[in-house]
Amino acid sequence: MSPVTDTVRNGVDTDKMYATLDLIKAQPELAKFQFRATNRWIDGAHNRSTIKGFYGAGAEDSTRSEEFQLDAGEPEILLGGNTGPNPVEYLLHALAACLTIAIVYVAAARKVELTSVESTLTGELDARGAFGLDDGPRNGFERIGVSFRVTGDAPEEKLREVVERARERSAVYDMVTNGVPVAVEVTTD
Amino acid sequence: MSPVTDTVRNGVDTDKMYATLDLIKAQPELAKFQFRATNRWIDGAHNRSTIKGFYGAGAEDSTRSEEFQLDAGEPEILLGGNTGPNPVEYLLHALAACLTIAIVYVAAARKVELTSVESTLTGELDARGAFGLDDGPRNGFERIGVSFRVTGDAPEEKLREVVERARERSAVYDMVTNGVPVAVEVTTD
Repeated sequence: MSPVTDTVRNGVDTDKMYATLDLIKAQPELAKFQFRATNRWIDGAHNRSTIKGFYGAGAEDSTRSEEFQLDAGEPEILLGGNTGPNPVEYLLHALAACLTIAIVYVAAARKVELTSVESTLTGELDARGAFGLDDGPRNGFERIGVSFRVTGDAPEEKLREVVERARERSAVYDMVTNGVPVAVEVTTD
Repeated sequence: MSPVTDTVRNGVDTDKMYATLDLIKAQPELAKFQFRATNRWIDGAHNRSTIKGFYGAGAEDSTRSEEFQLDAGEPEILLGGNTGPNPVEYLLHALAACLTIAIVYVAAARKVELTSVESTLTGELDARGAFGLDDGPRNGFERIGVSFRVTGDAPEEKLREVVERARERSAVYDMVTNGVPVAVEVTTD
């Protein structure tokens, strides 16, 4: 057995996980992060975000050698050209990704070997809100449904506890369910 | 002049926009949409969402010939392998994309020709929340800052009104600032 197989569970290095937690306990200021995205309009609904740098663990990150580019758009029925997922679909993806990572990390910490984590997310909205046609419907989703299928080497009860703990600790679940203050600034020159 | 140049502003077909609005006014049930994402865990923090189908305008969409795939991950400091933007970065992108599309559509409706829309979004969080080390900090961003630069053939005051109206009608801005009910279901077999 190599040392790697001793400490890696679900693809997560648990020795590194515990070391990180100990470091943050000792130096809480290392837990401060700033994440960023820059976006540029291309044409019509088509726009693109660039994501690379972030601040965390007391320094600007230097591990990302290339930037991530994300194209967004709208389908034809919403006046776009299908140049990418639309913004509300990206929000569903953000939520799915965050809950999934939390499930994988919590399972690793609790010595559960996962074999699969799959999810389907749905969001319903009435476009009269965002189109400004009716003040009744809100702009965004009225509700989001998340359906997880999680399998691994633990009894159902323990797998359900892992998902519940992940939900309690997910950053995007927190933001999507509780909301976040957003400040918008504008320059025009 | 071709007919196209008469009706297309900022890449948005305004004739089609007004026709869509008239149709929804006449048949409000056409405004009901359901958007979806399916996600699958790959390894460690790496997971992938697939986005294609949605319901809207009274039918299942048939205009998307290919699915969109989105890879998420975490940077090394957060125990991942930089396999994609992380979930909170995707949330910033969703917000940037939605506000940008709203700005472009509102400007088109108000006869403003835009020359550029650029934005930088930042979000701060204290990872002690998501790591479960301290119940003080929340899991997600404490706040999000959005800085727009918008230029076009209108006075500053009108450009600012466009951004303000876009903020009032953005689906993702609504969800991120006000929150959405999320129901999580789990199966384990």
